[in-house]
Amino acid sequence: MRQLTIALLIVASGSLANAQQAKPLASPEILPDGRVTFRLIAAKADEVLLTGEFLPAPQSFVRDADGVWSITVGPIPPEIYHYNFTIDGVRTIDPSNPQLKTGSTPSTISSVLEVSHPSPAFYDAQPVPHGEIRTHWYQSKSLGTTRRLTVYTPPGYDTSQSVRYPVLYLFHGANADENAWYRLGRANLILDNLLSAGTIKPFIVVMPFGYGVTPGGGPQADNTAKFGKDLIDDVIPYIDGSYRTLSNRGNRAIVGLSMGGGQALNIGLNNIALFSYVGGFSAAIGNAAAFPKTYATLASNAAEANSKLKLLWIGCGTDDSLFGASKSFSEWLTASNVTHTFRETGGAHTWMVWRRYLNEVAPLLFR
Amino acid sequence: MRQLTIALLIVASGSLANAQQAKPLASPEILPDGRVTFRLIAAKADEVLLTGEFLPAPQSFVRDADGVWSITVGPIPPEIYHYNFTIDGVRTIDPSNPQLKTGSTPSTISSVLEVSHPSPAFYDAQPVPHGEIRTHWYQSKSLGTTRRLTVYTPPGYDTSQSVRYPVLYLFHGANADENAWYRLGRANLILDNLLSAGTIKPFIVVMPFGYGVTPGGGPQADNTAKFGKDLIDDVIPYIDGSYRTLSNRGNRAIVGLSMGGGQALNIGLNNIALFSYVGGFSAAIGNAAAFPKTYATLASNAAEANSKLKLLWIGCGTDDSLFGASKSFSEWLTASNVTHTFRETGGAHTWMVWRRYLNEVAPLLFR
Repeated sequence: MRQLTIALLIVASGSLANAQQAKPLASPEILPDGRVTFRLIAAKADEVLLTGEFLPAPQSFVRDADGVWSITVGPIPPEIYHYNFTIDGVRTIDPSNPQLKTGSTPSTISSVLEVSHPSPAFYDAQPVPHGEIRTHWYQSKSLGTTRRLTVYTPPGYDTSQSVRYPVLYLFHGANADENAWYRLGRANLILDNLLSAGTIKPFIVVMPFGYGVTPGGGPQADNTAKFGKDLIDDVIPYIDGSYRTLSNRGNRAIVGLSMGGGQALNIGLNNIALFSYVGGFSAAIGNAAAFPKTYATLASNAAEANSKLKLLWIGCGTDDSLFGASKSFSEWLTASNVTHTFRETGGAHTWMVWRRYLNEVAPLLFR
Repeated sequence: MRQLTIALLIVASGSLANAQQAKPLASPEILPDGRVTFRLIAAKADEVLLTGEFLPAPQSFVRDADGVWSITVGPIPPEIYHYNFTIDGVRTIDPSNPQLKTGSTPSTISSVLEVSHPSPAFYDAQPVPHGEIRTHWYQSKSLGTTRRLTVYTPPGYDTSQSVRYPVLYLFHGANADENAWYRLGRANLILDNLLSAGTIKPFIVVMPFGYGVTPGGGPQADNTAKFGKDLIDDVIPYIDGSYRTLSNRGNRAIVGLSMGGGQALNIGLNNIALFSYVGGFSAAIGNAAAFPKTYATLASNAAEANSKLKLLWIGCGTDDSLFGASKSFSEWLTASNVTHTFRETGGAHTWMVWRRYLNEVAPLLFR
């Protein structure tokens, strides 16, 4: 068995060396006027398409005499976008671009295009004090497995040994993972910049893995139940035991996006004894017909909820297919006399929206 | 500009929703007998090839009547492998597999196949105390930019406020990044398991980004010089200022793989005042003709080096194209009377080898 492994590896090593020697195409190439050129070598392909968050519809590449396909689009406004190539019907990445969006299911795999702002954006790394991202491996008793957990600690956490901090529990969306909020959302850099500007108080951010079931498998209600049990029985005690937290409801927030927005609203609003700040970004909160049952406790105790909740924030972009759900939920909360903020913005179901929402909501926490 | 952005996003959101609804193919599928089936839907392709660390040569997929391509290979011994699909000449990933190998250049992009061991492997997450992985954003004065840095702290670091720790500086290879040693190398889990078994002393591991020049650009000597300056002038002081380190040469090790192996040997052996333990895994140490110049100080002070270095460890797989360089360096060290360990093993230029080397070398550090 051991000899077999060794023999198998000989050629693979040669392949790697060859791949490293091949000079990559310039793709994507951002032109001085803000347009962007994408390129691909695919001598045998009949059709190459570009899809991306910066395009209203797929666009066709054009092939030159050497078999190099290219397309120039834009100008594209400064932001961070995801895009894919579709080569003869196969949706894949831009093989010349090392920046990839990954997650917990294959549907999330895309290439990343970052068009820089002329001045640093609110999500850019700037020369300010930086917090840390910490990855933990913890034992989940409720799920019976070792799971990963991502934590942001604000600048100075290690050197302020007598200070205790509030905690934001921050959830990713479907097909993503516990790293999405910092790798794609730049949560740490957004908070570093807000802290440097004096706009927020320092707090810890906990980003758990949002699946209690196999990603893509099992009904969402089952997933939220299992994830919620892990959160409350395992994650929160683990965090309060590992970090210098202010471990009371007045210093605990729960916020999520998309699938995680549904989880944050469901878990948060059904556990007001644990959380004072609750937020849903482009939340997947399900059918309006289920609100009275899912949020029965909230509706029957609206006055108590209003006195205890310091923030209930729901935001969604009008171009998001989930906009109607957020609007319905807001209307149902209003009809149920639950005080809340409903923030209607431009934008679709993208990280562009969620970065802005975090930048807007963070200053409202732990006041 | 703002309205443009919003309009552009409408269809992208729809595309995302569709992609999420598409049921992924089972690829890779590990069969009960250890063989593995890979699948792809590519109705218009004429040829689909599989390349991977488990194959001696590229193999062709076979297409069925529905346009689904598949191939079954193996049995494949338990390990973590990288592989690619080549569709009509375009080298890309397996679009059904969310596990990707990424890095700092596109040549590193591959899909990941993990064949589990019947019992947990030395690199698997086991129910033992776990250290943390911490990501820092630090200001490099020598390079004039904000850079990322990955750090492993052993279990109990946060709760042992009076304990100080030795530090291993651990470098990745070409085309990779500061996360490679834990994402692909599982360094943290390997050390967690060794610690739990009582085989090593607890130490901190610092994994910097190994490029002082643009990845893939600039000569390697220039890169090593810039990276080395950042390491010595910025990274080490930053770490000694941020962590409870034992900040002396007796408690400092420097080890790397491939490009990082060349860097570790070059920087370590030319700075014996800073490091006591030096290691090169499958090191890219350049041409033998340059050894006398690059390591002139070492060769002219062999007796002093032998008394100061507690470990000089060089390992390479015999199937690695860099094996000859390591062997030449060992022979040159022997001729120069520099005491060292030359470890000749099976294997090629892969993470399988480097995980094993870390598992073997870690117990030799800080004795």
